[in-house]
Amino acid sequence: ERGSSLSGVAAGLARGVCRYFAAADYSCLLEFPLKSGRRADVMALGPSGEIAVVEIKSGPQDFRTDRKWRDYRDFCDDFFFCVGGDFPQTLIPAEVGLIVADRYGAAVIRQGEPHRLAGARRKAVSLRFARLAARRLQATLDPPELRLA
Amino acid sequence: ERGSSLSGVAAGLARGVCRYFAAADYSCLLEFPLKSGRRADVMALGPSGEIAVVEIKSGPQDFRTDRKWRDYRDFCDDFFFCVGGDFPQTLIPAEVGLIVADRYGAAVIRQGEPHRLAGARRKAVSLRFARLAARRLQATLDPPELRLA
Repeated sequence: ERGSSLSGVAAGLARGVCRYFAAADYSCLLEFPLKSGRRADVMALGPSGEIAVVEIKSGPQDFRTDRKWRDYRDFCDDFFFCVGGDFPQTLIPAEVGLIVADRYGAAVIRQGEPHRLAGARRKAVSLRFARLAARRLQATLDPPELRLA
Repeated sequence: ERGSSLSGVAAGLARGVCRYFAAADYSCLLEFPLKSGRRADVMALGPSGEIAVVEIKSGPQDFRTDRKWRDYRDFCDDFFFCVGGDFPQTLIPAEVGLIVADRYGAAVIRQGEPHRLAGARRKAVSLRFARLAARRLQATLDPPELRLA
């Protein structure tokens, strides 16, 4: 497991989001599998262990107001929806963080409601992040499908 | 910063070590910069947060009995020297963990003295591991030198 299966538009927005977070000294992973079974489109880990989750919405048809985002929030300090510049922003609940992105970068329009992870959850998510990132990197350096022995 | 600058023989041994640890459900990073300024040749992170450091010794001329390995041990639960099959193993202090490797795998010959990281150090090393792994992965997915904007 190493690449991204985000579709074209969403993959472009994710790239912009990762560039934004990298400039803010966060490290990012795409499609991060949570213990709940959901996958976070982007998970970002800050210099003091801060954890942000970003859900990419490529268009209004991709957006559900069913409040599933609260499930993501249980795994991060800061949760954001990310949309493109032509997305109708009024669809996004006012209490949720909002990022507007393109393929080249992103801007935080607003932070969401404050929420701070408990220590045990932060530790578990950080460890999962560390191990997954290194496994994906290892797969690029020494691809299993090319191993002869 | 993303690749490895380990020389040919050492890089091969490191590959074998990483395969060994991957099979044991550890995730590995090469050339991990420690807060002390030293670099660990291989750092491995286990399923419960266990941290192992492996120093690769490509030959006797590369080996110093100056006990620098104690500096590495301050950053891990388990420390190992890793050598090739033709290395004179009696050069390695008996109290240190020992791995013999080739390009395709590795075997733990002995564990070193038990040593358990304190919580704060473990947390700091794990966070550094997570952020570095994701940054290196990101550099392979979206190389800075190819960015046009």
